[in-house]
Amino acid sequence: MMPRNIRMVLEYDGSSFYGFQIQPQVRTVQGVLTEALRKLTQEDIQVIGAGRTDAGVHALGQVVNFFTASTIPAERFAPALNGILPPDVRVLKSEEVSQDFHARYSALAKTYCYVIYRCRQGGVLKRNYALLYPGKLDVSAMQEAASYARGRHNFKAFCASGSNVRNYVRSIKEFTVSEEGHWLKITVTADGFLYHMVRNLVGTLLEVGSGQRRAEDMVWLLQEGERSQAGVTAPPQGLYLVKIEYPAAYSLDSCQLPIV
Amino acid sequence: MMPRNIRMVLEYDGSSFYGFQIQPQVRTVQGVLTEALRKLTQEDIQVIGAGRTDAGVHALGQVVNFFTASTIPAERFAPALNGILPPDVRVLKSEEVSQDFHARYSALAKTYCYVIYRCRQGGVLKRNYALLYPGKLDVSAMQEAASYARGRHNFKAFCASGSNVRNYVRSIKEFTVSEEGHWLKITVTADGFLYHMVRNLVGTLLEVGSGQRRAEDMVWLLQEGERSQAGVTAPPQGLYLVKIEYPAAYSLDSCQLPIV
Repeated sequence: MMPRNIRMVLEYDGSSFYGFQIQPQVRTVQGVLTEALRKLTQEDIQVIGAGRTDAGVHALGQVVNFFTASTIPAERFAPALNGILPPDVRVLKSEEVSQDFHARYSALAKTYCYVIYRCRQGGVLKRNYALLYPGKLDVSAMQEAASYARGRHNFKAFCASGSNVRNYVRSIKEFTVSEEGHWLKITVTADGFLYHMVRNLVGTLLEVGSGQRRAEDMVWLLQEGERSQAGVTAPPQGLYLVKIEYPAAYSLDSCQLPIV
Repeated sequence: MMPRNIRMVLEYDGSSFYGFQIQPQVRTVQGVLTEALRKLTQEDIQVIGAGRTDAGVHALGQVVNFFTASTIPAERFAPALNGILPPDVRVLKSEEVSQDFHARYSALAKTYCYVIYRCRQGGVLKRNYALLYPGKLDVSAMQEAASYARGRHNFKAFCASGSNVRNYVRSIKEFTVSEEGHWLKITVTADGFLYHMVRNLVGTLLEVGSGQRRAEDMVWLLQEGERSQAGVTAPPQGLYLVKIEYPAAYSLDSCQLPIV
């Protein structure tokens, strides 16, 4: 029998992981998942992830796929793995998909959220799940800056230096800043993201919001493509990989949970 | 110079503490606070806490007081200690109070909140900060049960067995169950609490909400005082010590942060 292609949706708390991608000696999401699959199937399984989240970054709707020769029914992978995995990773769904589905290459779009909690002091319970921001933020200036980045642009100024991609052009479909009480939520949907792109965009929006630079700076940052001119990289704990979109043939029912 | 009496308001994440009260060999809030005060003042300071929270229980407005001979201005204790304390405890405020103020004995009332997040699966990011509850809950039945417990009663049925208090009578001033989307928040204010009283009341409300018992059971539970007849103890991670109230002479400005 041909190995089946299994797709799963994962939720994880990135606080105690050195990111998604497997690495020797450190605890990673891909690492604990591979280990749990080995226990379950006795196979050495290569897990493919839709997005490589950094250390401290969370996921509400990470998607992975893998091939297995085991006879475990596809939908049973979720409960079986949840019985093996540590409490900071959960499989929300598992299902069989067609052989050509690839969690990363088949993706049409990804959505990240960045969560900011404005407080002058305290915020201890949120320290790993949001950026605690003590100052004032001009939300409409941030919204204006975000609006300039929507569409198809060269995002080189927002790509971590040292990254070896050749094409810095990406399309941002949605880029919003919404406010609810103390909370600020920045949502970005794009066809793809460069390394640290969301955190660098957020860092720049924060400099706009705090009055350190103007919203229109976004326009020339996108034109000049100079990383050193854009804002600092916002810290990882506010970032959530929320959703991956696939073509209709591989469409995923929304099973993500609301943030915070 | 007479030692000054300093009062502080604390926020802490109970996840990595074996509760508030100092104990040998384990990490406690009182322990790390005593250690930080020793570093700051070179004194062996006895810290008095308003409430002894259990392992895993959080605080947004714990109050402590202590006497010190040091000359550090009272309001400087908060920032100075925050520079020494681990990131899961913050001092929100420090001030000098009159010599007769006692964090526990001077308290008129305490408020606890218990937070429940209803979800069938996932909820990884909330696992240490709420009770994840997968089933349906009849909120109005829970509200009815709570209403019977308001007022002055003998709460022996809700006190952990083995507790050696003599007087089980307490007055509950407020006991509400409120709903917002997936969230359920149970708020209890009383002049004092027996050991595990909030968690045992919540455990009973959950049995009412899930249809395992009737709301009116609360009436005879309060009359009979049999611990074994009441509900199980709800787990600690949903519980927050929110507020301590003092007489006007020692009144505390509200400086608590909103939950979640």
